[in-house]
Amino acid sequence: MTLKQLLGTELPIIQAPMAGVQGSALTVAVSNAGGLGSLPCAMLSLDAMRGELTTIKAQTDKPFNVNFFCHAPPSPSAEREAAWRAALSPYYEEYGIDIDTIPAGPGRAPFSLEVLEVLEEFKPAVVSFHFGLPSAELLARVQGWGAKILSSATTVEEARWLEAQGADAIIAQGLEAGGHRGMFLSDDLTTQIGMFSLVPRIVQAVKLPVIAAGGIADDKGVAAALALGAAGVQVGTAYLLCPEANTSAVHRSALKSESAGHTAVTNLFSGRPARSIVNRVIKELGPISVNTPDFPLAASAIAPLRAEAESRSSGDFSPLWSGQNPTGCKEISAAQLTHELATGL
Amino acid sequence: MTLKQLLGTELPIIQAPMAGVQGSALTVAVSNAGGLGSLPCAMLSLDAMRGELTTIKAQTDKPFNVNFFCHAPPSPSAEREAAWRAALSPYYEEYGIDIDTIPAGPGRAPFSLEVLEVLEEFKPAVVSFHFGLPSAELLARVQGWGAKILSSATTVEEARWLEAQGADAIIAQGLEAGGHRGMFLSDDLTTQIGMFSLVPRIVQAVKLPVIAAGGIADDKGVAAALALGAAGVQVGTAYLLCPEANTSAVHRSALKSESAGHTAVTNLFSGRPARSIVNRVIKELGPISVNTPDFPLAASAIAPLRAEAESRSSGDFSPLWSGQNPTGCKEISAAQLTHELATGL
Repeated sequence: MTLKQLLGTELPIIQAPMAGVQGSALTVAVSNAGGLGSLPCAMLSLDAMRGELTTIKAQTDKPFNVNFFCHAPPSPSAEREAAWRAALSPYYEEYGIDIDTIPAGPGRAPFSLEVLEVLEEFKPAVVSFHFGLPSAELLARVQGWGAKILSSATTVEEARWLEAQGADAIIAQGLEAGGHRGMFLSDDLTTQIGMFSLVPRIVQAVKLPVIAAGGIADDKGVAAALALGAAGVQVGTAYLLCPEANTSAVHRSALKSESAGHTAVTNLFSGRPARSIVNRVIKELGPISVNTPDFPLAASAIAPLRAEAESRSSGDFSPLWSGQNPTGCKEISAAQLTHELATGL
Repeated sequence: MTLKQLLGTELPIIQAPMAGVQGSALTVAVSNAGGLGSLPCAMLSLDAMRGELTTIKAQTDKPFNVNFFCHAPPSPSAEREAAWRAALSPYYEEYGIDIDTIPAGPGRAPFSLEVLEVLEEFKPAVVSFHFGLPSAELLARVQGWGAKILSSATTVEEARWLEAQGADAIIAQGLEAGGHRGMFLSDDLTTQIGMFSLVPRIVQAVKLPVIAAGGIADDKGVAAALALGAAGVQVGTAYLLCPEANTSAVHRSALKSESAGHTAVTNLFSGRPARSIVNRVIKELGPISVNTPDFPLAASAIAPLRAEAESRSSGDFSPLWSGQNPTGCKEISAAQLTHELATGL
């Protein structure tokens, strides 16, 4: 079975789910253009998720993907929270922020029974996960309505694990990719490898279709991914300037600037490694801090700094998610971008 | 002009120069097979270099490449040497090594007037550099006999710099590549990016032909690199098991083992970041140490540990250079490997 047949789409092109920077508008646009649009749900309340899924169902009858994180819930540590706030304290002072008076930023919840019950009302054709897979019991219920299951692998070991657990296709997330590293069997960043290595190695190791993700910005990137043996591609960063994305003004501005050329894998924004454009806080604290609380708790303490900076049109404390290849970012419709990517097939 | 025309070869395939693990035999085999064989000279004395060049000239009339490092000579620091030896001291103790009685390991000398004068006797068609370029004066003398000049870029900025200094083609060294990172305008490792980002970005930024290097292991990798806009490829790791390479027994054994799947960029072996298979010393000290003396001085203190371990058939302290994609390593002749790679053109 080809990837298109598996997904039920015209094109083996998946729009990468990007929590916090897109909602149903991008999902619908890409699915209606023949690709697989994705709705990221990690940062949505159950009500918001139901609302977005209702919107999608009303606006397309094409297949779409609904994406969830499935991390273990964090163990709060007062000590690490204090260390993290201490690391940020010069910035609180600079901005005149009293950290005790400001509410925490948006959280990121893992897939759960409650989430599943909302999802079951909509029975999406494709469900994708990041950070592994949910419990076998929850997974079986998703498979129960015929949904195809995708998840990200950042190593050969993760790809083999996902295949053994019943995934239908593997997203090979190269080190070039923006946003959170999907790594879940190791927290050693030296295990994270580039697409020229990851894609052929996973293709060799598993029987499932492999979807290449990371640094694919245009038709040439699509053609190169297929040449390496991928059955399809997942593209995120290139969609960030589309009008259908909710990308913030500071994020759009960063993506259009020279600074987009320099990204780093950082844990400062959530507690887990994720690729962002290098901004002030990454430069000054270094991309990886030993002080961050467990994912996703690190986000809370940095949230007021982000809000304050963004109110001054500064992205100094914002997660400016981007892959290593911003050359595909164009202010064109998601449909047009999807069609342009498809010329590389 | 195509890359083949520039190099004077039948194939736009360059065998990556790999100092310490290969000599003229590999150079000759690849050049005679239609690719561009390379002779790495960074670790050769003037006499050894003259001997190797004499051998090559006797065994092929095809073009070949001679490669040099062009780092600034190091500033020895007694303090850092002491810190580095202190970091290694538990291993000296374990192996019963008296560090004061053991001579330093092989050094790595930068391109110089003395080297140039030997090279001038042979006038090779192609000369490549790592870590930038030599002085304008030395470079002009190399160009004086018509040699084409190649050098590695690990960022867009480095590619632009090399173009401005008169290089004839740019080797885009992706983060996947084995051995020393060619980085020379920055020592910030977050600037180092994967092939899916580096190749398109350099192709977009310069007019020169771009040679993709890093993670290319087979014909599919070659095809993918060309799809991204590269004019040719440079392949190193895949040649390491060829009988014409001088790869040591422990190195060959590591490349054939499961452990080859896990590499890291490390400064432990020379003082500069270089990609090696993760072995005991990398695991125990971490891949990047703040204690290493300037490149290439760090090599001296670790050399006796390497020698002692290798005498026990252990690669625990050896630089096990490898890219992130060892899947192309096969015990076949360099000519056969070159022909197999060429099927991806």
